[in-house]
Amino acid sequence: MRSVYEILRAKRDGKELTREEIAFLVSGVVSGEVPEYQAAAFLMAAVIRGLNTAETAALTEAMRDSGEKWDLSDLAPVVDKHSTGGVGDKTTLVLAPLVAAAGARVGMMSGRGLGHTGGTLDKLAAIPGLRTDLDLPRVREALTKVGAALFAQTDSIAPADRTLYALRDVTGTVESLSLITASILSKKLASGTTGIVFDVKTGNGAFLKTVEESRALGRALVDTSRAAGREATGWITDMSRPLGRAVGNALEAEESILVLRNEGPPAVRELCVTLGAEMLRFHDPKLSDSDARARLQQAFDSGKAARAFEKLIEFQGGDPKVVEDPSRLPQPKQRIPAPAPRSGFIRSIATEKMGFLSIDIGCGRRKREDSIDFAAGFLVEKTVGDRVEEGEPLAILCLGDRPAPRPNFERELAALFAIGDEPAAPPPLGIEKL
Amino acid sequence: MRSVYEILRAKRDGKELTREEIAFLVSGVVSGEVPEYQAAAFLMAAVIRGLNTAETAALTEAMRDSGEKWDLSDLAPVVDKHSTGGVGDKTTLVLAPLVAAAGARVGMMSGRGLGHTGGTLDKLAAIPGLRTDLDLPRVREALTKVGAALFAQTDSIAPADRTLYALRDVTGTVESLSLITASILSKKLASGTTGIVFDVKTGNGAFLKTVEESRALGRALVDTSRAAGREATGWITDMSRPLGRAVGNALEAEESILVLRNEGPPAVRELCVTLGAEMLRFHDPKLSDSDARARLQQAFDSGKAARAFEKLIEFQGGDPKVVEDPSRLPQPKQRIPAPAPRSGFIRSIATEKMGFLSIDIGCGRRKREDSIDFAAGFLVEKTVGDRVEEGEPLAILCLGDRPAPRPNFERELAALFAIGDEPAAPPPLGIEKL
Repeated sequence: MRSVYEILRAKRDGKELTREEIAFLVSGVVSGEVPEYQAAAFLMAAVIRGLNTAETAALTEAMRDSGEKWDLSDLAPVVDKHSTGGVGDKTTLVLAPLVAAAGARVGMMSGRGLGHTGGTLDKLAAIPGLRTDLDLPRVREALTKVGAALFAQTDSIAPADRTLYALRDVTGTVESLSLITASILSKKLASGTTGIVFDVKTGNGAFLKTVEESRALGRALVDTSRAAGREATGWITDMSRPLGRAVGNALEAEESILVLRNEGPPAVRELCVTLGAEMLRFHDPKLSDSDARARLQQAFDSGKAARAFEKLIEFQGGDPKVVEDPSRLPQPKQRIPAPAPRSGFIRSIATEKMGFLSIDIGCGRRKREDSIDFAAGFLVEKTVGDRVEEGEPLAILCLGDRPAPRPNFERELAALFAIGDEPAAPPPLGIEKL
Repeated sequence: MRSVYEILRAKRDGKELTREEIAFLVSGVVSGEVPEYQAAAFLMAAVIRGLNTAETAALTEAMRDSGEKWDLSDLAPVVDKHSTGGVGDKTTLVLAPLVAAAGARVGMMSGRGLGHTGGTLDKLAAIPGLRTDLDLPRVREALTKVGAALFAQTDSIAPADRTLYALRDVTGTVESLSLITASILSKKLASGTTGIVFDVKTGNGAFLKTVEESRALGRALVDTSRAAGREATGWITDMSRPLGRAVGNALEAEESILVLRNEGPPAVRELCVTLGAEMLRFHDPKLSDSDARARLQQAFDSGKAARAFEKLIEFQGGDPKVVEDPSRLPQPKQRIPAPAPRSGFIRSIATEKMGFLSIDIGCGRRKREDSIDFAAGFLVEKTVGDRVEEGEPLAILCLGDRPAPRPNFERELAALFAIGDEPAAPPPLGIEKL
C-alpha cells in the first residue's frame, strides 16, 4: 500500500486509489495522524481529478465506518428516502406513516436544514412533545411496534464526515459529486436502512439547478449505494416552485397531516405516492408500480396512513391529537397577505429566495445556535401557471413570535412571483426516474 | 479581488489568478492568516491545473518579497549562474573567479546540497577558514574590491519559500515546473543579481532525466526571470555522468583550483567556458560568443583566473595558499581503488546512485543536522566511452575520518559502471542552448 505522500501524488496524477488506501486516509484524518494540510491536498486532488464509482464507494464506506454503525439487517427490509433538499419539502413526514401503513418498515434518519432549505428535524420538532433523539434500541422498537421511526443523526455517526465537511467548507472543495455523495451516504449507510429512494431536486429552488447536474448526482448516489450493497433507486423531481402550499415548520407539519387525511394539496400527495411506491417495492419487489400506488391510495383512503402518523407521534413522545386537530400545532400570531401587483399568469417563482426569506422570519438557522420560530412561514396561494388578479394574495406571510425583519416584508414576498400575460406550464413533479 | 476561498475555487477550476490574489495568498501564508490546509489546497490545485507565465512570475515575486531583498542595481550588471544540481558539479567555484577575472561582477548566492547532489556551500566550506555568511555590505565590498562574492542564502531571504517548500514536501506537490521555478527564482531574485545563466542538468544524474523535462524547466526559469525584469539565458547540459573527475567537497575544491590553473579535466573547463561566456555577455552585450570564450581562455592562460580565486578566498576569510598548494585542503586518509570486474568500454554510469553513495561516506547530509566529512569522495577514473582493462581502477574511493559504511563498498562503486563490448558515445556537455 502507498504511503499518504504517495497516495496524494497518485491522486494528483489522476491514478486510481485502492479501497485500503482510502480507508487508511480516512481513519488517519479522524485519528489526527493525517494532518489537515494533507487532507486538504487530498480533497483538492479528488475534486479536480474525480473519484470513480469504486473510489467513491470506498470513501463512503470508510466514512461510514469512522463511527457508530447501526445494524437493522434482522428487520430487513427497512426502507428510507433521502431528499437533496428544497423549499416546502415535507415528504418525510407523510412518507413515514404512509409507507408504514401500506406494510413496509420505514426508518429515516434526518438532519437539520442546510442553506435555504428547511430541515425535517425542525418540522418534526413543531409537533408538541415529539422527540427525534432515539437510540438504536428505541428505533428497533419503533420499527417493530409502529413500523416507522423518524430519528436524528447523532455525533457518533460518521465523524469523518464532519471533519472532512468542515475542511471542504474552507478549501473550496465542496462542489464534487463524489464528495457530496460520500457525505450523504456515509450517514445514510451508518443508519442501517437497507433500501433508499433518492429524491434529487432540480430547479431554481434546489442546490442543483439543472436536470443534468441532478442526474449526475442521482446516478452517483444510486450507483454508490448499490456498490455498498444497498438497494437504491430514485427520482429527479421539480423544485422550480415550492412543494405544496406551506413553507415553515408548523405549517408544513399541518399540511403533512392534511395530506395524510386526504385533504392536502394534490402536488404533495402526488410526489409522496411516486416516492412511496418505490419504497414499497423494496418491501415487496413483486409489486408493480401501479399496484404499489394503489396500495398507498388505499392507505390514504382507509385512514390507515393518518392513524399510523398518530402512532408514530405517540411512540416518539409527541401529542397524537394534532392529527385530528392540527390547531394544537404552534399557530401564527399574524397573517399578512402579499397581494399581486398586477393581473396575469404566474410565470415563475424565485424559490431559493423564498427559502432565504423564510429563514429571515425564523423558519431556519443562520448559525448553529440560532433558535427556530416554529409558527412562522408562508402559505403559497398561487403557483406557476396559475391566473391571478391584481390585489389577490399571491402568498400569506405568517409571523410567529417575531416581527417581520424589514418593513413591507410582504412586498418582498410578492416580488418573488414573476407575473406575465401568457400562461406558463410548469414541469411535471416527477421529471425523470433514476 | 477574490477571497482565499474564491481563489481556491478559481484555481481548482483552472482559472487564472491575478497578481494581487497571488500576493495576498503568499503574504497570508507567511503571516499565518492563510492556514496550512488552505495553502496545501492551493498547492495541489496549482500543481494539477498549472500556473501560466504571468502567475508563475507573480508567485515568484510574492515569495521574493516575503523577506529581505538586496539591491545591487548600482553595481549592475551583477551576474549569476544557477545549476539545477548534479554530481561533481563544481562550476560555481570556477566561474566566480574566472568571470570576475574576465572583467564582470559575479554575485552568486548558493544553497546546501539537495537529495543526491552536493551543495556549493559545502564545497566552499572545505577551504580552510572560508566563510560564506556574508551580509549585504560585505557582499557589496567583495563585488567592488574582488569582483566576485560567493555567499549563502540566509533565513531572512524569501521565508515564504521555506514555508511552502516544507508543505510541498509532505503534500505531494513538489513536482511542478511553476512551483520549482518560483522556489528557485524567489531566492535568486532576492539576492539582487541582474543577469542569471541557468545550467539545467539532464540525464540519469539530474533531477530531471529527459531533455524534454529539462527544456520545460529551463524555459520557465528563463521566461519567469525575464518577466521579473532580469536578464536570463542558459543551457541544458549533460548529467548522464559525473562532471570531471572529483566527487566530494575537498576533492572538488581541489579540482576547481586545478581547472583555474589550467591543469584540470577538460570537461569542467569546457562547461565553465560555455556558461561563463553567457555570463560575460551580460556584462558586455556587444561581445560575440567566440570573443567571450576567447576572453575566458585568456583569463585562464594569463593566470588571472587563479589569482582571482586567491583574492576571493582571502576576502572571505579563507586560506588563499590552497590555490598554490591544494594539499592544504582536507586530505583523504585512505584511497581504495574500485577495479573493473572485466575489460571493455564504459557504456554508462549510474550517476544518481553515485551521488547517494557519496552521501553514505560523508559528502552530504541525510538530515539537516548531519555533519560533513570534507575529505571524503570519489575520483572517477573512467567515464562513458572510455576503454578499461579488467582490474584497472574505474574510480578511487577516498575516505576521510569515517570508515566505509559497508564492507566491500568499493565494489558498490565499481558496480555503478556498466561495461560492454562496444564503444559508447556520451552526449555533448552542452546539449542545447535555452
